[in-house]
Amino acid sequence: MTEKYVNKVIVILGASFAGMTCAQKLRQLNPNWDIVLIDKEIHPDYVPNGLNWYYRHEISGLNQAMWQTEEEQRLQNIRCLFGLKVEKINKEDRELMLSDGSSVYYDQLICAMGSQAESTYIDGADAQGVLTTKTYATSQNAKQVLDKSHKVAVVGAGIIGLDIAYSLHESGKAVTLLEAQERPDFRHTDPDMSLPLLDAMAESKLHFFQNQKVEKITVTREEKLCLRTLTGDTFTVDAVILAVNFRPDSRLLTGLVDLSVDNSVVVNDYFQTSDPNIYAIGDLIWSYFKGLNSAYYMPLINQAIRSAQMLAYHLSGHAVPKLKITRATGSKHFGYYRANIGLTELEAGFYEDTVSVTYFPKEQYDLRIKLIANQKTGHLLGAQLISKENCLATANQLVQAISCDMTDFDLAFQDFIYTARESEMAYMLHQAAINLYEKRIGLCE
Amino acid sequence: MTEKYVNKVIVILGASFAGMTCAQKLRQLNPNWDIVLIDKEIHPDYVPNGLNWYYRHEISGLNQAMWQTEEEQRLQNIRCLFGLKVEKINKEDRELMLSDGSSVYYDQLICAMGSQAESTYIDGADAQGVLTTKTYATSQNAKQVLDKSHKVAVVGAGIIGLDIAYSLHESGKAVTLLEAQERPDFRHTDPDMSLPLLDAMAESKLHFFQNQKVEKITVTREEKLCLRTLTGDTFTVDAVILAVNFRPDSRLLTGLVDLSVDNSVVVNDYFQTSDPNIYAIGDLIWSYFKGLNSAYYMPLINQAIRSAQMLAYHLSGHAVPKLKITRATGSKHFGYYRANIGLTELEAGFYEDTVSVTYFPKEQYDLRIKLIANQKTGHLLGAQLISKENCLATANQLVQAISCDMTDFDLAFQDFIYTARESEMAYMLHQAAINLYEKRIGLCE
Repeated sequence: MTEKYVNKVIVILGASFAGMTCAQKLRQLNPNWDIVLIDKEIHPDYVPNGLNWYYRHEISGLNQAMWQTEEEQRLQNIRCLFGLKVEKINKEDRELMLSDGSSVYYDQLICAMGSQAESTYIDGADAQGVLTTKTYATSQNAKQVLDKSHKVAVVGAGIIGLDIAYSLHESGKAVTLLEAQERPDFRHTDPDMSLPLLDAMAESKLHFFQNQKVEKITVTREEKLCLRTLTGDTFTVDAVILAVNFRPDSRLLTGLVDLSVDNSVVVNDYFQTSDPNIYAIGDLIWSYFKGLNSAYYMPLINQAIRSAQMLAYHLSGHAVPKLKITRATGSKHFGYYRANIGLTELEAGFYEDTVSVTYFPKEQYDLRIKLIANQKTGHLLGAQLISKENCLATANQLVQAISCDMTDFDLAFQDFIYTARESEMAYMLHQAAINLYEKRIGLCE
Repeated sequence: MTEKYVNKVIVILGASFAGMTCAQKLRQLNPNWDIVLIDKEIHPDYVPNGLNWYYRHEISGLNQAMWQTEEEQRLQNIRCLFGLKVEKINKEDRELMLSDGSSVYYDQLICAMGSQAESTYIDGADAQGVLTTKTYATSQNAKQVLDKSHKVAVVGAGIIGLDIAYSLHESGKAVTLLEAQERPDFRHTDPDMSLPLLDAMAESKLHFFQNQKVEKITVTREEKLCLRTLTGDTFTVDAVILAVNFRPDSRLLTGLVDLSVDNSVVVNDYFQTSDPNIYAIGDLIWSYFKGLNSAYYMPLINQAIRSAQMLAYHLSGHAVPKLKITRATGSKHFGYYRANIGLTELEAGFYEDTVSVTYFPKEQYDLRIKLIANQKTGHLLGAQLISKENCLATANQLVQAISCDMTDFDLAFQDFIYTARESEMAYMLHQAAINLYEKRIGLCE
């Protein structure tokens, strides 16, 4: 088999987290394969958080927001075609037509084109001055516009909207944050866990409006942007950031492989599309979310990396498990670290009898831990953390607990390192689990 | 049953972490029981790390090193007899004789007297100026002596010795640290994971001597202390801190219940001693250590708390699992956070075929993650972390992984929150697990 494929050509389309990781892992595992990495961006390894770091003064330029810096070493023996667009995929001849007129043959094509912020319902979302921030190019453009702007509207108060709204507010801009739902990070955060965030947002004097669904953006005669919402309210600003849902960027595959209604690429457990020579990973695909026992679209860096590694192992002949997600997000804004894992209590309540506790330790820690479990079995369904200290590592313990089907009982009697002052959160998680267990079996309220 | 025991008297002997936790949990679960908490200390809730915090300038007095501060609320409805010594346990009459001449009856006696630093082999270990630091009284005494001392010897470079040696060194004292074994934290840290610590110790100019087993301490004519080691070397100092092994303080139980050769109290899975009315928890007992498939003595705060909660549940009629430990320790000294979990590679090698990786991420993170697994099955056996950033929460994820019988494969494909810059350690743990898996199945060296 090694002989046969000595000249096997694998082309990877998209060189962000998924594509880059896949290329590197394939290179490591198969020294003889010809690996080609194509991206329309010149800097495909840009971390989408770059603009936040810049406005929070953590970096002084977006060129410092690259995922991996030792470029030479990293790209060793990977043929990189960056800054080139693929115009067309010719699946019969297994050929890609590039924007410079050249073509590239593939034995197997791995699609990792990722996702982009897209609004299907806002009229004028493509107006000049309406910005997105995911790639280096769009972030650079956004930075140029924002540096000249004072009044900025951010559309969408999910994690991305909260992040950039906070960053711009911190940098001195007058920020208006508009959210269609009744609270920020609506999908992943229960109302009680939103309260500290809402308090901090109110205190920051950022202008936050909930229940305001933007329906139209127009350019005024003064070259300002005017946003009109469904309720008829209008907001006039210098620039708009579109922080709405990310959608898979599968345009190149239209008509070539099966797509879902949301344009994600349909793949089997081994990331293979309906064309056996074409694979898809990262933000192009759905993953299995145990919480809802169904496929789920969740564009996250860790899922991009994991799906890329799994496909590389699979193509190299090594067994891999099915890609599963717990729907876990982490963020830092308005003075808080926040983590949301699995189902919210609101959501879980639709499917099963649930029990939850929200643990408040001694006030000086400024920490809330919410745990949600099945009332009957105690299996953990979800967890939410908000803390002034970094709680993301503790959150990752809970991601693992939920993945491993742990119960409140298991977690309550679980061993842990308790070094007073240095690992207080471990003790608090222990107490939260104890509280959940006691509440579930009726020992306390 | 509630009726019968409406006047049930539970006496808890020792009010440190184990005793205090047990009293509070019993009080919560059984409003009618009479709960008596006895301790010879006036401040039994002292955290043994107090002296470290004081010399590291994190607190300004040892009275700030109490575990729980809201004393009134906490001790509500618990009869506390602090500063009173139990002279004798009369098990026939279920009676304790106290140092003030009074006596206390018990239906059930819970022993939580804890442990103390004890050397059976150092001649002169009880000399004036030879200090221990576990209780408020001994720490207060140590502080008085140390405040007047410049040259201090610390005997034993386990975690406690390393902690106090670092604290005293930071406060400007000339510290000599003597370790009988060939490296610091010998039992829990493999040689390769000791290197960054040894480098930092050397850089600090603290005087560290390995392979120096102290056999005798004498008081000189100048009222200094002279330590002589097995190799014949001598060290003359103003004060000595005994940071040697902790031993169970079970003296009161001698002849009353079965003790092990190390004087720990023999208990069944429900913490019951050979006298059915007497229980023992915390540092008095051994716990089950899966890594060695045997009982193991490990005096740790978390085990004190967990055994106390478990006994309280059990006595209140609720099911509890068997107390298990992963042998997990955390510490912070010489600029590093360190965590050691489960078996070391050296140790595991005696029992099974093992594979390990030591992961070094990009240098700026100053982090090493070592993972040890069974070569055949990939089950995680141990983990060691050393980092300039707090890695104890990540270590707790590994404690949980080992408790849950996870394999390298499970951990490598485990979901995790990856927020660049804010949860880099999660990505590094992922990569470490990937490396371990690849090494085990022969994909890399």
